[in-house]
Amino acid sequence: MKTEYRLYRRLALVSFFMAISYFAISQISVRDEIAFPDIPGYVTLKCDFHIHTVFSDGDVWPTIRPEEAWREGLDAISITDHIEYQPHKDDLPTNHNRSYEIALPKSEELGLLLIRGAEITRDMPPGHFNALFLKDVNQLDVEDWREAIIAAVNQDAFIIWNHPGWRQPDEIPVWHDEHTEIFQKGWVKGMEIVNSSSYYPKAHQWCIDKNITMIGNSDIHNPVNLDYNIYKGEHRPITLVFAKTRTKDAIKEALLSRRTAVYHNNLLIGDEQYLSPVFYGSIKIMNREITIKEDQWKNIRIHNYSDIDLELEAGVNENNIVMQQKVTLAAHKTSLLRVQWKSEKLTGTKNIELLYTVTNFLIAPGKGLPVKLKFQANIIRE
Amino acid sequence: MKTEYRLYRRLALVSFFMAISYFAISQISVRDEIAFPDIPGYVTLKCDFHIHTVFSDGDVWPTIRPEEAWREGLDAISITDHIEYQPHKDDLPTNHNRSYEIALPKSEELGLLLIRGAEITRDMPPGHFNALFLKDVNQLDVEDWREAIIAAVNQDAFIIWNHPGWRQPDEIPVWHDEHTEIFQKGWVKGMEIVNSSSYYPKAHQWCIDKNITMIGNSDIHNPVNLDYNIYKGEHRPITLVFAKTRTKDAIKEALLSRRTAVYHNNLLIGDEQYLSPVFYGSIKIMNREITIKEDQWKNIRIHNYSDIDLELEAGVNENNIVMQQKVTLAAHKTSLLRVQWKSEKLTGTKNIELLYTVTNFLIAPGKGLPVKLKFQANIIRE
Amino acid sequence: MKTEYRLYRRLALVSFFMAISYFAISQISVRDEIAFPDIPGYVTLKCDFHIHTVFSDGDVWPTIRPEEAWREGLDAISITDHIEYQPHKDDLPTNHNRSYEIALPKSEELGLLLIRGAEITRDMPPGHFNALFLKDVNQLDVEDWREAIIAAVNQDAFIIWNHPGWRQPDEIPVWHDEHTEIFQKGWVKGMEIVNSSSYYPKAHQWCIDKNITMIGNSDIHNPVNLDYNIYKGEHRPITLVFAKTRTKDAIKEALLSRRTAVYHNNLLIGDEQYLSPVFYGSIKIMNREITIKEDQWKNIRIHNYSDIDLELEAGVNENNIVMQQKVTLAAHKTSLLRVQWKSEKLTGTKNIELLYTVTNFLIAPGKGLPVKLKFQANIIRE
Amino acid sequence: MKTEYRLYRRLALVSFFMAISYFAISQISVRDEIAFPDIPGYVTLKCDFHIHTVFSDGDVWPTIRPEEAWREGLDAISITDHIEYQPHKDDLPTNHNRSYEIALPKSEELGLLLIRGAEITRDMPPGHFNALFLKDVNQLDVEDWREAIIAAVNQDAFIIWNHPGWRQPDEIPVWHDEHTEIFQKGWVKGMEIVNSSSYYPKAHQWCIDKNITMIGNSDIHNPVNLDYNIYKGEHRPITLVFAKTRTKDAIKEALLSRRTAVYHNNLLIGDEQYLSPVFYGSIKIMNREITIKEDQWKNIRIHNYSDIDLELEAGVNENNIVMQQKVTLAAHKTSLLRVQWKSEKLTGTKNIELLYTVTNFLIAPGKGLPVKLKFQANIIRE
Repeated sequence: MKTEYRLYRRLALVSFFMAISYFAISQISVRDEIAFPDIPGYVTLKCDFHIHTVFSDGDVWPTIRPEEAWREGLDAISITDHIEYQPHKDDLPTNHNRSYEIALPKSEELGLLLIRGAEITRDMPPGHFNALFLKDVNQLDVEDWREAIIAAVNQDAFIIWNHPGWRQPDEIPVWHDEHTEIFQKGWVKGMEIVNSSSYYPKAHQWCIDKNITMIGNSDIHNPVNLDYNIYKGEHRPITLVFAKTRTKDAIKEALLSRRTAVYHNNLLIGDEQYLSPVFYGSIKIMNREITIKEDQWKNIRIHNYSDIDLELEAGVNENNIVMQQKVTLAAHKTSLLRVQWKSEKLTGTKNIELLYTVTNFLIAPGKGLPVKLKFQANIIRE
Repeated sequence: MKTEYRLYRRLALVSFFMAISYFAISQISVRDEIAFPDIPGYVTLKCDFHIHTVFSDGDVWPTIRPEEAWREGLDAISITDHIEYQPHKDDLPTNHNRSYEIALPKSEELGLLLIRGAEITRDMPPGHFNALFLKDVNQLDVEDWREAIIAAVNQDAFIIWNHPGWRQPDEIPVWHDEHTEIFQKGWVKGMEIVNSSSYYPKAHQWCIDKNITMIGNSDIHNPVNLDYNIYKGEHRPITLVFAKTRTKDAIKEALLSRRTAVYHNNLLIGDEQYLSPVFYGSIKIMNREITIKEDQWKNIRIHNYSDIDLELEAGVNENNIVMQQKVTLAAHKTSLLRVQWKSEKLTGTKNIELLYTVTNFLIAPGKGLPVKLKFQANIIRE
Repeated sequence: MKTEYRLYRRLALVSFFMAISYFAISQISVRDEIAFPDIPGYVTLKCDFHIHTVFSDGDVWPTIRPEEAWREGLDAISITDHIEYQPHKDDLPTNHNRSYEIALPKSEELGLLLIRGAEITRDMPPGHFNALFLKDVNQLDVEDWREAIIAAVNQDAFIIWNHPGWRQPDEIPVWHDEHTEIFQKGWVKGMEIVNSSSYYPKAHQWCIDKNITMIGNSDIHNPVNLDYNIYKGEHRPITLVFAKTRTKDAIKEALLSRRTAVYHNNLLIGDEQYLSPVFYGSIKIMNREITIKEDQWKNIRIHNYSDIDLELEAGVNENNIVMQQKVTLAAHKTSLLRVQWKSEKLTGTKNIELLYTVTNFLIAPGKGLPVKLKFQANIIRE
Repeated sequence: MKTEYRLYRRLALVSFFMAISYFAISQISVRDEIAFPDIPGYVTLKCDFHIHTVFSDGDVWPTIRPEEAWREGLDAISITDHIEYQPHKDDLPTNHNRSYEIALPKSEELGLLLIRGAEITRDMPPGHFNALFLKDVNQLDVEDWREAIIAAVNQDAFIIWNHPGWRQPDEIPVWHDEHTEIFQKGWVKGMEIVNSSSYYPKAHQWCIDKNITMIGNSDIHNPVNLDYNIYKGEHRPITLVFAKTRTKDAIKEALLSRRTAVYHNNLLIGDEQYLSPVFYGSIKIMNREITIKEDQWKNIRIHNYSDIDLELEAGVNENNIVMQQKVTLAAHKTSLLRVQWKSEKLTGTKNIELLYTVTNFLIAPGKGLPVKLKFQANIIRE
């Protein structure tokens, strides 16, 4: 294919002494929508709330962040440059609000929601915190960490404890007294259970036990394509936000209401009440009715509209049916799930519910989502 | 495949309350060598002499440039930020030598040659010029363009006229009096015949007629992966430099001696004396001896070791043989070229030379490289 | 990715002396749905009515054909082995109904519609004809070509003139007296305007002028993956059939009613009344309302849900708006279309219709589909 | 890219009433060479000795097998249709020598070595055996399995015990008395340690202990692209044969001399004496000399010319150097291996040997290949 494409370009050489230019927008300047269904009552927004630029220790100019995010299919991002860590400051003097200001026009041009944020960056404890929905980042540039957090709270920010395993032994999160303080005071309401390539099961459990909003972020410093092979289907970790509308206010309301899930590699992590409608909204059983006789194997054909491969393991089912123990419902494909009828006596129409666990939809650490696949079997005699 | 890979990651969840991190260097942090053969007497170095960073109007921190270039298989680059055009200067005060200084340690860590450069940026005429092998860029920051060029000449720089079609009608290069002056004085010795997505056949012809060194550069401002789908095989335009050794001095000597070729999309552009050994060094005829009889078709199997698809068109050949008129020798593949023997009288062993033109190896605008494919035919009777 | 996937497999080696087997259905045994929208009143079925097996001059056992077709997203196929051309008959004795009989159980298992067919194979004129919806192929195995066609007509077959350019000078179709006869008698009602890699514009025009059903078929002999790089997005030519239901009878009714389009490479070919709803059903304007002021450029963001890149060229539009002249709406991506407002006087809300031609949706040879892109502009003063 | 390629095809529409055909050989009709180095004294031939066609229970016509194998980079194949299992025989009467005869001209046209073979197919014990280098398969069609094997031995065949875990509990191979008999008598000299997706560590150990030739075969029945996503880099299991020349006789001599290795997924399995030169012939250390000081990290840059990712794990090394514990040397890429110098006293030039294990080069079940990476360190003081 490549060859002929290139040949085409070469054919353009006919107009001999003209410059041969291609003004057309490159074919990679397009957006891939991230495919997860909306769920009843909410739109599913794809968000990354932890991003750096040259204005702290990142490596790109702020305009690059909305461009990358738009192409990847994100709906909202927050640039959260470190307040206290400014390694480029000898070349680029500190100016905490600039990355937001510079990135805003590009975000608006692309219809991307840009949330003003910053990263409060202290040793552990208490560690790093992202403050989102700020009005003026400069007010957080104070010496005492409590004052910095309070300054954010006073601006009505939504605050997230970042990468809780950072600088802890084996990267296992430790809950210090300071964390009791900040959560009990209601200052901090979210926690990264995924940051970059790390998933923290312990933090996941804390979010369930202590009613904390689960967040997954990229914490990207490089141009995104140096860390993820986006064009081959890799993706940065993101937070799915189930929002009432596609606005910043609705995102904030959803974060305060814990309506999130985390999409990391081939994992979706969140509460059953959100993962369940995402699952059922992602699949379609193409043949809801099958005719089958004793000992016969038949295929249930299931299409997966989402971006994520669904890994299914059979649960305990009724005696009359044998089913495939492990099935992958590949993303954007129709897969086959094989079933066999075992009962020699039964005939007639029967509603079947196959019990499976989606092992990569985590409703708690190590615990997959239980689902039912329903279809109708017309059982016949030979 | 993806599924199982992801499954693997999920399996890691066994260590329940540990953070699950992947410290391993990502599989995309590797280098793809650009496959062109060395030619007799010279190593073939892959170079990009026109690159921007946040220190002028580019969008990445300087360290990103050697990282990108190394991964893509380049051997040498020059960061050439605009001297006179500093749109970020309110945030990032002008400092002409900084992008080189910041990028140098990363370049050395990766074994990449980094050449200190800068872009003299004036209206047309005379336009833009890249000065390479500078010692101090600040000395070029003067009002008069002649003085800027002279400052570079005094540092023994190699100077290139950039994108000669820029701001000319239909992007067709125009030769102004100023260009006569700078070339006659020996100030400028190179010319971009390719810049970004533009190839200038007229500039190509000037390089041939006036003995100017042919250069192809990316002029990249974005992170490279936003402009080129590197992971799917796209590449930025580069200059192949046929150097005596892998050093900066040797690159300079080669540029002064016009030993270059330009690699752009699926085109290789340069003098026949360099394109010819690149072609013959790229291919191998796997069956140099065939047995054939009248009217029979046989395959010549040719492997192409290079990164470029070789587009062949048959020339006028002797009467006894019929050959495939168009053949693509696909990059890194073994392709078939079909031949048929026509003479009913001849038998015995015969050395055959098939005359072809490599239409995407341009030895002049619109003119492909003539080549001969040699093999031995054992002609038999039925 | 690959590396880690493989590592996973290797990890399985823990159970030292067991065989390490992968019983799971391979990840390539899945179906890619071909993405074209249903149109009002009809389901859009993807069909290939010209396929060979080892039972004539093809190279695969009949069961392979439904397997391949299912994976590629087809809904219906017809195996149409040559009746008169049986090159394998010394090894595999002629049996005209066997390829259908062997392929049927696999088709039913996969929910694929298998239509019994055969290819009447004569020199030109009259050439080759596919008879679909046959009951017994053996009755067509007669010496006279008219009798063979009549035998098919008597079985109520739908008959197609195959590859009308076959064995004609430059592969340009020629209309012989025999063709006048067979179409006037109503024996033959369809014509291949695309066969394998050939598109016949002349046949396309005949279908328009003479009210013939347009058909595009693969005429595949090899395993499909040897001719098309399916896994990289290539596809065989197919016929889109706009049918009332997903049944063989409904396909036949649609063929008789000329409700078809042909999908070939990046071309969709058919009548405007079908291509138009396919286009509008394929796209969604993501921002139907924009705010714009004089001389400002804004983006219209358009998602293309279909498998085909939509190539748009601007038509003549009203004076107040400047629009991008050429846009590609890439398949399964959201692309940007740039517009600029030119009038200095107008303000307020205005409904805009941009006139474009979809140059790769052919409603006649060389003639693209006219379309309108509608959105609302809120025009403001600076 | 795709878009523009297609646009090019569309441009061809200018010649309005001509057929638009593409006679050029498709870009997928090319050969990918499988990249493993020759080793001292031998050429490394890539072979698959277990392949089926429609002449037993396979699904393709015999000519497809050399075409597939050639494209995948194989040098030699054997079609080994079952003698006793002929499920297509009602349609296709049994003829044991035909698949070889039909496939031979295509093999010769492509320069592929085709070895006449057959599969003796009996219940376990003794199971299935491939007899290679046969002269007449029909002589093996006898009732008693010993007589069938003896018939093959009398034709000087090389005989392989196929998939020894077949129909054994958990697919773990069991050594029956019959196997003692056939190996002690010298009838059978090879064993499949890999068949299709199964690797049998127990059979691997037997080959080491009992001096049996290790074989890996595909046992392919489908068109190869339905089982392996060849175009995305998957490969069927093959046997690397280290032969004196590229001939059938040399393959036989190598098989008798146990000069083989098995390439399966990302595993290479064989004796250390062959895996070791394959490893060293596959890599090149790009910077054999580094300058380093205490506590400094430096990169060793290693290119891997082979098709296989090399998975390295550090062994016990001397005290003065710290090295990356796990490294993947990605196929066809240059990867970085990081080392740190720890000794504060030593300076000067030192030859370093880093001890690693290539965990996916198995010299015994579960045992990787030990290797040394050598370079010179110039140790300096700060």
